[in-house]
Amino acid sequence: MDEFSRIARYFAPLAGPEGLGLLDDAALMAALPGEDLVLAKDVAIAGVHFPIGCVPAVAARRSLRPNLSDLAAMGARPLGYLLGLSLPAALDERWIAGFAAALWEDQQAYGLSLWGGDSVKAPHDLSISITIIGAIAKGAALRRSGARAGDDIYVSGVIGAAAAGLAQALGKAPVRERWLDAYEAPTPRLDLGRALVGLASAAIDVSDGLVADVGHLAQASRCAAALQLADVPIPSGLPLSPEDAITAGDDYELAFTAAPSVRSAIFTLSESLGLTLSRIGVMRAASKDGSPVVVLKPDGSELLLSRTGWQHA
Amino acid sequence: MDEFSRIARYFAPLAGPEGLGLLDDAALMAALPGEDLVLAKDVAIAGVHFPIGCVPAVAARRSLRPNLSDLAAMGARPLGYLLGLSLPAALDERWIAGFAAALWEDQQAYGLSLWGGDSVKAPHDLSISITIIGAIAKGAALRRSGARAGDDIYVSGVIGAAAAGLAQALGKAPVRERWLDAYEAPTPRLDLGRALVGLASAAIDVSDGLVADVGHLAQASRCAAALQLADVPIPSGLPLSPEDAITAGDDYELAFTAAPSVRSAIFTLSESLGLTLSRIGVMRAASKDGSPVVVLKPDGSELLLSRTGWQHA
Repeated sequence: MDEFSRIARYFAPLAGPEGLGLLDDAALMAALPGEDLVLAKDVAIAGVHFPIGCVPAVAARRSLRPNLSDLAAMGARPLGYLLGLSLPAALDERWIAGFAAALWEDQQAYGLSLWGGDSVKAPHDLSISITIIGAIAKGAALRRSGARAGDDIYVSGVIGAAAAGLAQALGKAPVRERWLDAYEAPTPRLDLGRALVGLASAAIDVSDGLVADVGHLAQASRCAAALQLADVPIPSGLPLSPEDAITAGDDYELAFTAAPSVRSAIFTLSESLGLTLSRIGVMRAASKDGSPVVVLKPDGSELLLSRTGWQHA
Repeated sequence: MDEFSRIARYFAPLAGPEGLGLLDDAALMAALPGEDLVLAKDVAIAGVHFPIGCVPAVAARRSLRPNLSDLAAMGARPLGYLLGLSLPAALDERWIAGFAAALWEDQQAYGLSLWGGDSVKAPHDLSISITIIGAIAKGAALRRSGARAGDDIYVSGVIGAAAAGLAQALGKAPVRERWLDAYEAPTPRLDLGRALVGLASAAIDVSDGLVADVGHLAQASRCAAALQLADVPIPSGLPLSPEDAITAGDDYELAFTAAPSVRSAIFTLSESLGLTLSRIGVMRAASKDGSPVVVLKPDGSELLLSRTGWQHA
C-alpha cells in the first residue's frame, strides 16, 4: 500500500474542513476573532513513549492525548491536529487501520479533527509526531508563570497509577486494569483546564513527574513549592514506592496553583466534574539554595529524592 | 547535556514571543484579523531525506525549507515553526550547536521564529519534524485545485539540479557546487508564491518530482496536464536523463497554472524577481483513461515513464 492510497483510505476520512481533504500542501484555518491560538507538539517513539509491539490503539492514544493534555494545561479547547508518521517497513496495513480507528475515536471524544501532516518510511523507529492546535479567549490562557507565594498547590486525579501501568505493560508487575488504563489511555483534563481559567494562578500537566513538573511551574513563577507527601493522591496498593510515584511521570493530570480565597470554588468544581482535586502543598518565596521543590514527610522532615522526574538524555 | 540545558542553551535563543521562552506547555498566538492561517508539517529522517552523517546545517535546511516551500505554494508568508527533534545518543553537543546555528540563519533569511516543540531521545533514527505556521489574506490562498482546461502550466527555476546534487552527496556523481547546493540548501520560492496570489489559478511545490506533483495539481483540479519535455528547464550537463530529472523530486520549485491572458504579467514577474518562469505545458480536460499527466517529446509522441516521482512505500 503506497503513501497516497494510505492517506486516501485511512486518514482522509479523519480530516476536518481545515485539512482540505489532505490534498493540498498545507491546512488552512480562518482566524478566530477574539481568541488566541495555542499550539503544542510532541514526539512519541516506540520503545520510549509506548512499548514496542503494543497494539496500535495504545500508540495512537499515547501520542494524541499528551498533546490534548498540553492544551488542558493552558485552559484551551482542541480544534485540530497535524500528524507526522514515521513508519518502519514491518508495519502492515492492519496496524494503520487500527491506529486510524483509535484516532477517530479520540477525535469524537475530544472534539477535534485531522488537518494534515506527513507520512514517511523510517529506517528503524516507529515515531509519531503530533502538532495540536487549540483556542482560548484572548489573554485568558493559563500559564506556568502565574503562581505567587502563598498560593495553594493542587493536583487532579491520582499520581503513580500510570507508572504502575507501565510496569505492567513491561511485564514487571501483575496486571490491574485500572493502572494499565492510566498508562495506555491517559485522560487529558480538558474540562478541568477550561474551568480553571479565572480560578487558577498557574497550571502545568504532569508528564515528566509530579515533582519535576511542579518544579517547572515554580521556576517559571520564580517561586518555590513545598509539597506534603501525605497529601499526594497516591492510590493504595500501588507496586511502587511513594518516591517513585511522584517522580515517574506519564500521569497527565493537571497540577495548578490558586489563591487560598478560592478553596471553596475549587471544592465545588471538583464536585461538579466528579474529579478529585487534592490540595498537596503551598507556594513559597524562592528559597536561597535555589531548589524549586521540597517534598515534606509527615514528620516535617524533607524527603530526599535521587531524581525529580523523567528526562530525555 | 540534558534536555532542559539543551533547550535553554541552543533553542530558547531562537524563540519568538509566541514561544513563551519555550517554558510553557504550548505556544500562544494572537489571532490575525482578516488573515487565514496556513499550517504544514513535514518529517525528515537521516538516510531518507538527508544523508546519514551530513553536516547539521544540511539537516536543518532540508528540514525547515521544505516546510517554507509548502507555504510558498499557497502564497503565504511564514510566521513561526515548532520543532520535534528525535536524537540518537551518538549525536554530540557540537551537532546540536551547528543545527541550531543553521536554523537561526534561516529564521533571519525567511522571517520566522521558533515557537516550541519537543526534543526526545531516539533508539535509532535521527528525525526532524517541523510544523510551520504562515498567514495569508483571508480567502486568498493558492490551492492545487483551481486549474482549468486551457490554463498554461509554468515551473520556476530549474528541474533536476537537486537530484544531481543528491547523486553527488551520495558519491555517485562528480561534485558541482551549484547542484549540490540545490539539494543541500533548496530555495523556497516565498516571494514568487506571494506574487502569484491573484495571478495563478493553482500552485504546488515540486517535492516528489515534477511529473508527480503536476499530476497532483491536475487531479485536485479534475483536469489533465500535457507537459512539453523540451520546455522543461533542465540544466545542460546534468548527470541524469531528462526522464530522471522530471521524476526525481527535491527541486522545491513552484509549479503553477495561469490563464493565457496573464502571460505578459508572468513574464514581468519573472523579470522583477530575477527568477526564470518557464511555460512547460497546458491543462486539458481530464482524459478518459484517467492519466493526470502526459509528457510529450519534441516529435509530439508521448514519453512513457516507469514512474512519475518519489513515493514513500
